[in-house]
Amino acid sequence: MKRIFFTPGPSELYFTVEQHISNALKQGVASISHRSKEYVAIQQATEEALKELLNIPEGYHIGFMSSATEIWARSIENLVSTKTYHFVNGSFSEKYYKAAIAQGKEAIAQNAELGSNNDITTAIIPEGTELITLAQNETSTGAWIPIEAIEKLRNNYPDTLIALDGVSSLPTAAVDINNVDMLYFSVQKCFGLPSGLGVWIYNDRCLEKAEQLKATGKFHDTYNSILNVHKFGLKHQTSCTPNVMNIYLLGKITQDMVNKGVDQIRNEAKYKSVLIYDLFEKHEKLSPFVKEKQYRSQTVGVAEVENGATELMNKLAEKGLIVGGGYSQFKGQHIRIANFPTHSKEQMEMLVDTINDLEF
Amino acid sequence: MKRIFFTPGPSELYFTVEQHISNALKQGVASISHRSKEYVAIQQATEEALKELLNIPEGYHIGFMSSATEIWARSIENLVSTKTYHFVNGSFSEKYYKAAIAQGKEAIAQNAELGSNNDITTAIIPEGTELITLAQNETSTGAWIPIEAIEKLRNNYPDTLIALDGVSSLPTAAVDINNVDMLYFSVQKCFGLPSGLGVWIYNDRCLEKAEQLKATGKFHDTYNSILNVHKFGLKHQTSCTPNVMNIYLLGKITQDMVNKGVDQIRNEAKYKSVLIYDLFEKHEKLSPFVKEKQYRSQTVGVAEVENGATELMNKLAEKGLIVGGGYSQFKGQHIRIANFPTHSKEQMEMLVDTINDLEF
Repeated sequence: MKRIFFTPGPSELYFTVEQHISNALKQGVASISHRSKEYVAIQQATEEALKELLNIPEGYHIGFMSSATEIWARSIENLVSTKTYHFVNGSFSEKYYKAAIAQGKEAIAQNAELGSNNDITTAIIPEGTELITLAQNETSTGAWIPIEAIEKLRNNYPDTLIALDGVSSLPTAAVDINNVDMLYFSVQKCFGLPSGLGVWIYNDRCLEKAEQLKATGKFHDTYNSILNVHKFGLKHQTSCTPNVMNIYLLGKITQDMVNKGVDQIRNEAKYKSVLIYDLFEKHEKLSPFVKEKQYRSQTVGVAEVENGATELMNKLAEKGLIVGGGYSQFKGQHIRIANFPTHSKEQMEMLVDTINDLEF
Repeated sequence: MKRIFFTPGPSELYFTVEQHISNALKQGVASISHRSKEYVAIQQATEEALKELLNIPEGYHIGFMSSATEIWARSIENLVSTKTYHFVNGSFSEKYYKAAIAQGKEAIAQNAELGSNNDITTAIIPEGTELITLAQNETSTGAWIPIEAIEKLRNNYPDTLIALDGVSSLPTAAVDINNVDMLYFSVQKCFGLPSGLGVWIYNDRCLEKAEQLKATGKFHDTYNSILNVHKFGLKHQTSCTPNVMNIYLLGKITQDMVNKGVDQIRNEAKYKSVLIYDLFEKHEKLSPFVKEKQYRSQTVGVAEVENGATELMNKLAEKGLIVGGGYSQFKGQHIRIANFPTHSKEQMEMLVDTINDLEF
């Protein structure tokens, strides 16, 4: 049976991926040298498509990493001497905090109630903090930080580096990248690609901080340090043999999204999002986990299921509709529904209708 | 024009890859959760196929990393407090040494003449050395360390961890894994897969060393530390969202190789290797870069080209035959011909005949 994945990543592939894989194989993309001109043209095309889709400003650069998890580790190694501050509102924002703790940093977690956010615009962040981290969309709970709040955080702390997790919200979230110093995402979420590639967007201030740490012997120097990633990036290359296929595919998908129009993608996300939360609010067995409307994710809808989620998930799976389960302590209690660009309005309507028709 | 890649990685895809990709897409492999039972079964199947193909002994474990380059960095971070010793006979063995230097280790490089090897069986390695590294096949020069020598190195230094680079020689090289503590390879060489996955095989002694370093605060703790990789590996999972497609494909290709028979693969490599070196010795414009026969790689043949390699490479490319160029300082002077399991005897004969017929 053909399955449709509404899981919040890995998820359903973007609907043009299969054709692009077929073209890539015909062209020998997986066989070319990652030091060849042919490869350089591929990476450059992907960078340019991303710059257009995400409106990446001057002074920002793109590094291709193996995962968002790697970006947590490398940014802590290369941008922080001592102090970090983390807005934590679920498992993924907490993992960034834990990455800092593992590396012996003085890391502060500001914990929000799960399914909500603390107000990032009124937070008092200690002097000397070198890196502030926050997840625009917390994939584990479906809590979404309103875009406008990020600008206020930036204005409150203009001199501290800010790292924004856009793993499961880009390009749906219309983030103004000028308000952060680094931003990252994984390709197996909204971009609908096979997993195994993380994209790190960082600015010159990150590079300056890394240089300062290097000068004072506080820089953890590896092949994928931000400075080495940048050095190779200037040549449209990577510091090691990368996931060439995925860098190629990301360029193609991103160009497809540019051609479709990012506004169209964002409008469709809003429409589908209304369907999801309407279901959660009206269905007697479901309730939205995120109570405050302004915090409800537009890309990952999370619902509490009365008497447990397993039966519903199994019955949907029998019909080929795969939704995500609750994350961590919410396993068996929640369902999570991805609302990614590849999910059509028709598919989302079908999912909602099916849930409404099911007994569970 | 359909091209055939004889480049030493990325290279021609294994001849069954395209079919496996097609099956994977039909089955939704790229969309399943990396925490699902379905994924666990995939990783376990890949591990079991590798254990069979490479004859991996009890007490050795498999970690899935993003590249061999990552394995250099992680092994230096997790297995070494102070002292390393590196047999260097080309760019790739040197990169391991440089990874240790970058991390501030007291690293010793024992440099061989390029295109040759120093005798690893008579080396005097300083007391207190924690990790000895060597490249069984140095991809940049085509220098190959005879398998038997590794056993003698092991016997000379039974208590020091030995790391063997099998990046471009496994499974063609019949390595007895008992003679090393860790071994690693990249999938875009002999395994004929798209790039973006490194395989780290390590034993319990590596884990014990990592635990010792952790206990004394000398362990660099990240998501892909050997201890975290191992913790997730016990559940047939990875510490972050991995390259699921490639882990699936590696299992399928490895099983194909098991079914074909590793002895058959090794015998074919020997036959094709004779063709390559015979060409290099008899052709008036070519000469084998590795002079000593016992050091000649069975997987990457490297030749010096009289008056430069560019014309030959271009004329071959016009016919759809892509060979590798010289690495680093040998660019424009050498050609490198990969002799990987996917390259058939007929393809290799065609390449040799074509070179013999060309004017350059």
